[in-house]
Amino acid sequence: MARRSMKEEILGAGVDLFLEKGFNAAGVKDITDRAGVPKGSFYNHFESKEALATVALERYGETRRLTDLANREIPPLERIRRHFEFLRDELPDFARGCMFGNFSAEVVDHSEPLRLRVHDSLNLWSTLLADAIAEGQAAGEIRGSLDPQQTAHYLTNAWEGTLLQMRADKNPDAFDVFFAVTFDALLT
Amino acid sequence: MARRSMKEEILGAGVDLFLEKGFNAAGVKDITDRAGVPKGSFYNHFESKEALATVALERYGETRRLTDLANREIPPLERIRRHFEFLRDELPDFARGCMFGNFSAEVVDHSEPLRLRVHDSLNLWSTLLADAIAEGQAAGEIRGSLDPQQTAHYLTNAWEGTLLQMRADKNPDAFDVFFAVTFDALLT
Repeated sequence: MARRSMKEEILGAGVDLFLEKGFNAAGVKDITDRAGVPKGSFYNHFESKEALATVALERYGETRRLTDLANREIPPLERIRRHFEFLRDELPDFARGCMFGNFSAEVVDHSEPLRLRVHDSLNLWSTLLADAIAEGQAAGEIRGSLDPQQTAHYLTNAWEGTLLQMRADKNPDAFDVFFAVTFDALLT
Repeated sequence: MARRSMKEEILGAGVDLFLEKGFNAAGVKDITDRAGVPKGSFYNHFESKEALATVALERYGETRRLTDLANREIPPLERIRRHFEFLRDELPDFARGCMFGNFSAEVVDHSEPLRLRVHDSLNLWSTLLADAIAEGQAAGEIRGSLDPQQTAHYLTNAWEGTLLQMRADKNPDAFDVFFAVTFDALLT
């Protein structure tokens, strides 16, 4: 099997460490150590930690399986539920959370390039979710009185807050609340 | 007017800088500079930055006016709306967010004392909110089918996510979504 390129190793380590430690606590040396490459090699591939984080956000977004929200083989309400179940089930040990939310809390006030990247990522997510909600309304599965765009933003926000509460709790109670209120009280 | 004690100056600067920069980016020297005291004086008053943050969370919580949620002079649904309007209106420039949420994103995975303090703060908030929701149900103002505890947790989570989205947007759209969906689709 071909070894990943040094740039790929650094990027993978960046994604992991930004999630584990946060943007500020993850130093360039932490990242190159995790990647198993010399510290000096970092700047051959990325201009700065901020430049790495921009690409890391994009890479992280690709792993969210957002396009599953547009998969018409699954009924829309069930599709939305499976999407959030996927996001829940890939989190280990009630920690780490979501890179979009973590960067919103820690970084976007201080970096315009990272703010714009997070903003675009959240927008793509809520746009795909709004389409699925509108589809569910057309199919009679979701309350027709809801505004799909507003509801989609509200759900992504409730999800991000759920991850914060889950980390403060170190147990899955916040997930149970999210699924109960979203699917039994808000959408249906 | 009596000058605040050195400990109070450090605590006030800590609250401000943890909100402005985050826990990791706010160094002890930043905090003593902001407080206008010598760096060396920090450790006369606090054992560590973590110890300061524990007290800062408590101080921040006292400014949330959570007890307004129990003020029976105002009808419960209106009281809940005013509570979130207060939290919205005291945020300057679509930045900073909430210390509970920021610490959940950045710190609670790495500090058990701070995790417990954030956990207790969020619990106090949702308990007071749940009581107001139950009161609103008894008064016929809020949908009786909602579980007050679950709904309260969901609302605090949606609020924390709203602050993250607002910071990524740098505009008030996320607040409009929060108020519209919470008060027109979920609670009533």
